[in-house]
Amino acid sequence: MSRLATTTLRPMSRAVSERPALDGPVLVVGAGLIGGSVAMALSRAGIEVFITDVDRRAAHVASSRGAGSEEAPDPDRVRLVVVATPPDHLGSEIIAALETYPRAVVTDVGSVKAQAWAEVAGSRADARRYVGGHPMAGSERSGPMASAPDLFEGRAWAVVRRDDCNAAAVASVRALVEACGATVVEMAADDHDTAVARVSHLPHLVAVLAAGSLADAPRNHLALSGQGVRDVTRVAAGDPELWRQIVLANAEALTLLLTQVRDGIDDLVESLGTGDGERLEKILRAGVAGTEAIPGKHGGATRLFATVNVSIPDEPGALARLFADAGEAGVNIEDLRIDHDPGRAFGLVEIDVAERRAESLIDALRARNWSVHR
Amino acid sequence: MSRLATTTLRPMSRAVSERPALDGPVLVVGAGLIGGSVAMALSRAGIEVFITDVDRRAAHVASSRGAGSEEAPDPDRVRLVVVATPPDHLGSEIIAALETYPRAVVTDVGSVKAQAWAEVAGSRADARRYVGGHPMAGSERSGPMASAPDLFEGRAWAVVRRDDCNAAAVASVRALVEACGATVVEMAADDHDTAVARVSHLPHLVAVLAAGSLADAPRNHLALSGQGVRDVTRVAAGDPELWRQIVLANAEALTLLLTQVRDGIDDLVESLGTGDGERLEKILRAGVAGTEAIPGKHGGATRLFATVNVSIPDEPGALARLFADAGEAGVNIEDLRIDHDPGRAFGLVEIDVAERRAESLIDALRARNWSVHR
Repeated sequence: MSRLATTTLRPMSRAVSERPALDGPVLVVGAGLIGGSVAMALSRAGIEVFITDVDRRAAHVASSRGAGSEEAPDPDRVRLVVVATPPDHLGSEIIAALETYPRAVVTDVGSVKAQAWAEVAGSRADARRYVGGHPMAGSERSGPMASAPDLFEGRAWAVVRRDDCNAAAVASVRALVEACGATVVEMAADDHDTAVARVSHLPHLVAVLAAGSLADAPRNHLALSGQGVRDVTRVAAGDPELWRQIVLANAEALTLLLTQVRDGIDDLVESLGTGDGERLEKILRAGVAGTEAIPGKHGGATRLFATVNVSIPDEPGALARLFADAGEAGVNIEDLRIDHDPGRAFGLVEIDVAERRAESLIDALRARNWSVHR
Repeated sequence: MSRLATTTLRPMSRAVSERPALDGPVLVVGAGLIGGSVAMALSRAGIEVFITDVDRRAAHVASSRGAGSEEAPDPDRVRLVVVATPPDHLGSEIIAALETYPRAVVTDVGSVKAQAWAEVAGSRADARRYVGGHPMAGSERSGPMASAPDLFEGRAWAVVRRDDCNAAAVASVRALVEACGATVVEMAADDHDTAVARVSHLPHLVAVLAAGSLADAPRNHLALSGQGVRDVTRVAAGDPELWRQIVLANAEALTLLLTQVRDGIDDLVESLGTGDGERLEKILRAGVAGTEAIPGKHGGATRLFATVNVSIPDEPGALARLFADAGEAGVNIEDLRIDHDPGRAFGLVEIDVAERRAESLIDALRARNWSVHR
């Protein structure tokens, strides 16, 4: 079960050689969007994959799209089982997998963890071989036709462990995450459920309410829909049956957050009623702070900018020439401040550019006789 | 002022020749995101543009980025004024423009209309030369560095008129919209404000509340942020000072909608408390219906699919071969249903593809000996 075991006789691809080895065969239980995508990602990485589903047609479609074999594997050979069923069946499927595949590590991709953990812990199954997982990727589409092997590239994937988890099992699930191109975020089960209530389930419900108010809107009103409303409501197109199970499984954490949003609405309604602009702006500023708190896509900080300072003569066309020179150097100017009133002989322009492009911009502008410093 | 007037001595570009003629010079008042983008779009289309701003540096930056001249135009030559100032100054700037530019049509790009209309109607200015406008495009960024000439391509742009509007003025504003690459949606002022409360301002406030709950979340919780929460909250990064003005100007319509969302939250909290899955699913289904009500980007219906039926033999690899053949034909399969249990000799597969690709898929599959019909 150790990820250190040498694997042989397995087709090697570039992707595999760059990432930690994951031992196969892997069995994926559930051929929906997520299960199908995991199976496709692992198959593409050269790992032996089996895929199964209570709906044999779903498994057949997934298999035909490159998600591995739909045959039943030899139970003693399976090294890792990925349970990718809807939340209502998560606990029982994890327990069944632990019992059916005695040498396998078992993980899952469920959106809520505490309930499944409790079921596994309360069973006779060997819970030390179970490590929870939750890839933070999805789509408003569902089913094996929506699956894609690159669904998890650059996404976060929660690995949810307890102290008594087998260390080799944790290593195996980490290797699964990395083989799928995602980034491991280790968490405890309770902490995970509170986190996803806030970063996934609450945004989903809020999008559902905003979208719900469009359902009976006049057609000419809807004709004014721009990118904003499309982005805000996109996730609300997700499968209602799946989301019913998710939000019910995380009811406690969600109720608390929904109550806070209701307080926020009361605050907005009162501010609008009294015309209290300061209070409104405070609420709007908290929203801006929230968007800034979301880290960059790869789990790191938001994109960093560097400031480059350029002295420019106050003459017609000077700033336009600066834009043209920066453009020719292939550097995108993200923002800009001018530190003087036009009218003086020289002014200082502060240019914000992507951190890693700053040096080449400075070189390019100096070569064109601009006076530049950081 | 008529759009039918022949214009001469104006640089012609391809874009101009394809679109209805707009008479210049055009003066854009306000060099922020929207004003700068309008000015850049018109300049690119070969129309003579002047741009001004109370902050001369903003006008200078916009002008240097290709948004026209920052010089003051001859008031008698100006044919169209586009007022692109924040909502609080909209009415007074429209009135000032009607008075300062006696031969010009005046329009604006404000998010809320009723208040500005009332101010204009209550003034001594010639209100027949004013036609409201509202492009349904924006960005979470602001200022002239965020402007782009293609910001309005394919977007809706409300043209808000009253019965006493000069017909030539309406034609002129329609020509402006088309010169910017957007689609005209004509509406009355009250109707416009109710519409944008629903498709723009409410989604914005809902995004603000969802984002606000992230501001003080633990760092490791935020590490689980996926694309969903980014999309739901993106617009909440918008300028708080601008949005304060917008929501206050549309307070009445927004209060009604916010109250409905509050009822929706009460509904959710009760359903979670009693574990009422059916009631939850009903709310979730209304959200799905809302996303389906939003028309396609260009104001038309959502993308249409056609179903193509293929008989496939029940033998290993038949479905995989079908996927490979469709892929070689360059047709993307959007969804698929299998109408039999695997185990019978033949089955029917229903394939959904983009309407306009159906015929070429049928031809390609028949050429590869598949039995196909629509």
